[in-house]
Amino acid sequence: MQFMASPGGTLPRRPTIGVFDSGVGGLTVLRALLERIPDADYLYFGDSARLPYGSKSAATVAHYAVGAAHYLQDRGAELLVIACNTATALALDQIKAASRVGVIGVVEPGAQAAAAASRNRRVVVIGTEATVSSHAYRRALEAKGIAAREKACPLFVPLVEEGWVEHPVTEQVARIYLSEAFADDFRESDVLVLGCTHYPLIRSLLGRVAPEHVTIVDSAESTAHAVAEQLQVAPIESVRSHERRAYPRLKFFATDSAEKFRKMGTRFLGHAVEDVEHVDLKE
Amino acid sequence: MQFMASPGGTLPRRPTIGVFDSGVGGLTVLRALLERIPDADYLYFGDSARLPYGSKSAATVAHYAVGAAHYLQDRGAELLVIACNTATALALDQIKAASRVGVIGVVEPGAQAAAAASRNRRVVVIGTEATVSSHAYRRALEAKGIAAREKACPLFVPLVEEGWVEHPVTEQVARIYLSEAFADDFRESDVLVLGCTHYPLIRSLLGRVAPEHVTIVDSAESTAHAVAEQLQVAPIESVRSHERRAYPRLKFFATDSAEKFRKMGTRFLGHAVEDVEHVDLKE
Repeated sequence: MQFMASPGGTLPRRPTIGVFDSGVGGLTVLRALLERIPDADYLYFGDSARLPYGSKSAATVAHYAVGAAHYLQDRGAELLVIACNTATALALDQIKAASRVGVIGVVEPGAQAAAAASRNRRVVVIGTEATVSSHAYRRALEAKGIAAREKACPLFVPLVEEGWVEHPVTEQVARIYLSEAFADDFRESDVLVLGCTHYPLIRSLLGRVAPEHVTIVDSAESTAHAVAEQLQVAPIESVRSHERRAYPRLKFFATDSAEKFRKMGTRFLGHAVEDVEHVDLKE
Repeated sequence: MQFMASPGGTLPRRPTIGVFDSGVGGLTVLRALLERIPDADYLYFGDSARLPYGSKSAATVAHYAVGAAHYLQDRGAELLVIACNTATALALDQIKAASRVGVIGVVEPGAQAAAAASRNRRVVVIGTEATVSSHAYRRALEAKGIAAREKACPLFVPLVEEGWVEHPVTEQVARIYLSEAFADDFRESDVLVLGCTHYPLIRSLLGRVAPEHVTIVDSAESTAHAVAEQLQVAPIESVRSHERRAYPRLKFFATDSAEKFRKMGTRFLGHAVEDVEHVDLKE
């Protein structure tokens, strides 16, 4: 990377960071990036016409993701963040091979944070069917000497999208999924990795339902941390507030209706989603 | 239509019927067609790489559906059944305009059956968000003098796909959705229309949860009935069994993995899904 940090931690010029996701879920990653690196320009691409990636094959996901990566680079992205766990799990190598700029996915930072947090070297990862089937998290964790159990939780995304983030049904579903995950050899796992961008919205519910000794690792936060490291951005608390002018510029592209993206996106980003452009991405 | 029925009700030659859906859900419509019109050839197109249509905009759905309709006609379909409620609701007119052959959607047959079944002229229709937002069922029912309440039930599809067809969570979700639907002016509705191809799999659960006086109308069955009428196929019970040789030929096309289609499809069709070809549909 060519970005150099000045001593105060501010960047000599604002980097343009491209964030890619299959829809609005990756806005939880953008949210974490905005908190960590506010003085940057962000281009967010949500492939909402073709979501969810979670139920699609590796070849299809790679095809879509590479197209989106090209689009973001053509628009000026100097670093790509693959905010979609499924796209990272299934297509990170292909996206890297097809990109002129640096590419950071969500799996490796999430696995690193989990490895650092686990004392008994046993980690549970929850995600979509496709992320779990790819075993990307398990491979990344095993490479660090950590045993991993991956558990697909396909109902969490629709429950979050239904707005049932604090709801008895979601709690019942979480009890079923987590009791299946934290069982047998993994009963004593001490880390739960949120391996899907929708899950931060039910983080506090999951915290209540998971066994008491469990630390929750959010891949979105871990990824924002990894991006800041790569850009050599100083931790925000080390910079005096007047030195850090936080005017992130945000531009959103959606392959489906801009209006729907705006409406749904607000809940994931935590504030209004404004400048959305509809993109008709030919295959 | 050019198909003429012989007096015994068998067709002089086998029609080729194209069935289109966003994925495997339309296999419940194919299942109903096979029961009603076994002596036909069927081409089934499941646009599984781009499902679900239920969360997409009208323009996107129309674009996808017209492409699939062309594909089926190019392969020899002489009649098109749009098995997807969302595609019918959002794009039937565009598909008809773009097709050389007859096109039958699932909404009108479902609405007709509901109108015939309702004594108090009040009907509840459940479906995906997109089907409900289009108000296609309400328009079709109001044209027949029937008051309709449409209720989106976005969790039913993922619950069915999770395999939780007889499950306490699904029952709890159904109680919530149906109590919201059968309320106020629609407390006394006597018909519940299953306006989504996934719902026949939880038909018996819905039958238990719905108020006792309610008749369930399945759009899949109503559509098969409408297709048989258009092809002038005699009711199966009026044909002596030896006169009706039931050798349907089935060919499936899927835009995502053929293997996934085969695996998931079996539950919807009720028997093995065999001859599946992967199709890479360029936009």
